[in-house]
Amino acid sequence: MNVHDLPTPALLVDADALTANLADMADRLPGPRLRPHVKAHKTTALARQQAALGHTGFTCATVREVEGMAAAGLGEDLLLANEVLDARRLGALVDDAARVTVAIDSPETLAAAARGGVREVLVDVNVGLPRCGIAPDRAGWLADEARAAGLTVRGVMGYEGHLMMLPDAVERARLTEECMAKLAAAHADVGGEVVSGGGTGTYAMNTWVTELQAGSYALMDTAYTAAGLPFRQALTVLATVVSVTDHIGSLPGWAVADVGLKALGMDHGNPTVSGGQVWFVSDEHLTFASAEPLRVGDKVQVVPAHVDPTVTMHERLHVVRGDEVLDTWAVDLRGW
Amino acid sequence: MNVHDLPTPALLVDADALTANLADMADRLPGPRLRPHVKAHKTTALARQQAALGHTGFTCATVREVEGMAAAGLGEDLLLANEVLDARRLGALVDDAARVTVAIDSPETLAAAARGGVREVLVDVNVGLPRCGIAPDRAGWLADEARAAGLTVRGVMGYEGHLMMLPDAVERARLTEECMAKLAAAHADVGGEVVSGGGTGTYAMNTWVTELQAGSYALMDTAYTAAGLPFRQALTVLATVVSVTDHIGSLPGWAVADVGLKALGMDHGNPTVSGGQVWFVSDEHLTFASAEPLRVGDKVQVVPAHVDPTVTMHERLHVVRGDEVLDTWAVDLRGW
Repeated sequence: MNVHDLPTPALLVDADALTANLADMADRLPGPRLRPHVKAHKTTALARQQAALGHTGFTCATVREVEGMAAAGLGEDLLLANEVLDARRLGALVDDAARVTVAIDSPETLAAAARGGVREVLVDVNVGLPRCGIAPDRAGWLADEARAAGLTVRGVMGYEGHLMMLPDAVERARLTEECMAKLAAAHADVGGEVVSGGGTGTYAMNTWVTELQAGSYALMDTAYTAAGLPFRQALTVLATVVSVTDHIGSLPGWAVADVGLKALGMDHGNPTVSGGQVWFVSDEHLTFASAEPLRVGDKVQVVPAHVDPTVTMHERLHVVRGDEVLDTWAVDLRGW
Repeated sequence: MNVHDLPTPALLVDADALTANLADMADRLPGPRLRPHVKAHKTTALARQQAALGHTGFTCATVREVEGMAAAGLGEDLLLANEVLDARRLGALVDDAARVTVAIDSPETLAAAARGGVREVLVDVNVGLPRCGIAPDRAGWLADEARAAGLTVRGVMGYEGHLMMLPDAVERARLTEECMAKLAAAHADVGGEVVSGGGTGTYAMNTWVTELQAGSYALMDTAYTAAGLPFRQALTVLATVVSVTDHIGSLPGWAVADVGLKALGMDHGNPTVSGGQVWFVSDEHLTFASAEPLRVGDKVQVVPAHVDPTVTMHERLHVVRGDEVLDTWAVDLRGW
């Protein structure tokens, strides 16, 4: 199939860029040294490629992601790197022979894990990002409580998310070391084999974790590209030019493509169009000025400012090489 | 069912606010004077309530919305107020006895309509918003071309979208009149019965259209509320507090709820939490400081900054009165 025959807006993944990204990361962090985060692509077909490279343990952000991975036969070692107050759906997967580990950072989330039938946990440690995670000096206490409740404590996790986008790699490395020192101290108190953390932004410098939770490296993101990472931008949204106006009154000409707020993650701002200047984004439209004259019916590739929330808006993604559609994958881990 | 038993994040609609909004608009613009825009809620169950009040013609923004409305038996008079280059799916609905009208603003979109099997069109006229729409003085020419191609031209549409959020109602009314003068001039050249346009922001002052395309009035939006409209904010996202930190080092305390970028339209900025100050939003988390002490497991209602792109991220919405869930509706018009 030719890419121009796809209904638009359509999510495109450059097959060669994806393959290169997966291979480069697997070279650097082979097998279980990487626990790919599926939240970045929400696509079991893509996860299957990561598993084929030897990364058979996965990181998830939602219960639905855990369920979908287990249903796809990728349930060998699933970590829900997030806190939940109702773990019954996770417990049901454990009963079905998936291996599910959940993060805990409080007595309440510990109790929910035990009550829901999850048997293995990681203690989530705050290493500086103001989000989830228990204070490092309380981690050992929580691990003791978990073991007393009959849970297996596999170790710790801690995410230095506030450092991922720091443009200065030296400063990023220095602060990563500080964060990981906190995680190591907590780990000494908690015990277990696993020290899980990190992400695409610190994949090259976070040498302290036993497993890195990177996800964005597969499809990449403009912000990560700006931070000087070697992975290639693989994801675009294909759109059709549905209207062109030469000019009206004093306004110069513009074009309108059929991709809008409902097809683009907007929290990092407007998308970009090669050779164009974006004016604004509406629900189903992108209004932009183009350096090259465009005609109604032309196709444009739009680069979203933030990949993760963009992918989750689409039902499928198309793997392409040039103008050829090689494969179409369901984005099957959406929702909660 | 109690609202606190819902898995979170969960989209909630206040039943009484919705009922009041629908009734107030139907009082002002009864029956066919309103052509509700389904893009605002993407939910056929809600559209059915609008139809029960007498609004049996609907506005859609995507082919999928038109298909879903027809499949739900709401295909009496569907307007796709948008340009498409491939109208075959619309033509198939016409063959199945739905009445489908599509907007055209160029020879290319005219040809697509004819080729796809759509028989009725509106000429989309640019009235000032730099998006779709032909220049007013070219509208008559396009209508002639459409009739020559065998299409029925029902009239014109023009959307003064750039005026919707103007805070000064007097200025909004003055500029609406200017825009509608352009639409009226085009209508004189085009002919037909229909003059379609307007939206929630101009519902009270746009007295020139024969049918108003308002959608947001049903669930409303914080920006529209700020513009002094009388409709009530009906939509919130229910979230669970999954982590609470008293303080770490010099950072004051914060809470984390399980609602993030993948459950909130972010193009108008951060959401708000009653009694709280939002710090930042991550993929699946909202980090905020709360005036009242919160505990892990507490529920919070989050008000998204933009309703339309929020609704489209959810599979269902729950109609609630206080803590009681009265009904659950599928958000069944998502995608393209």
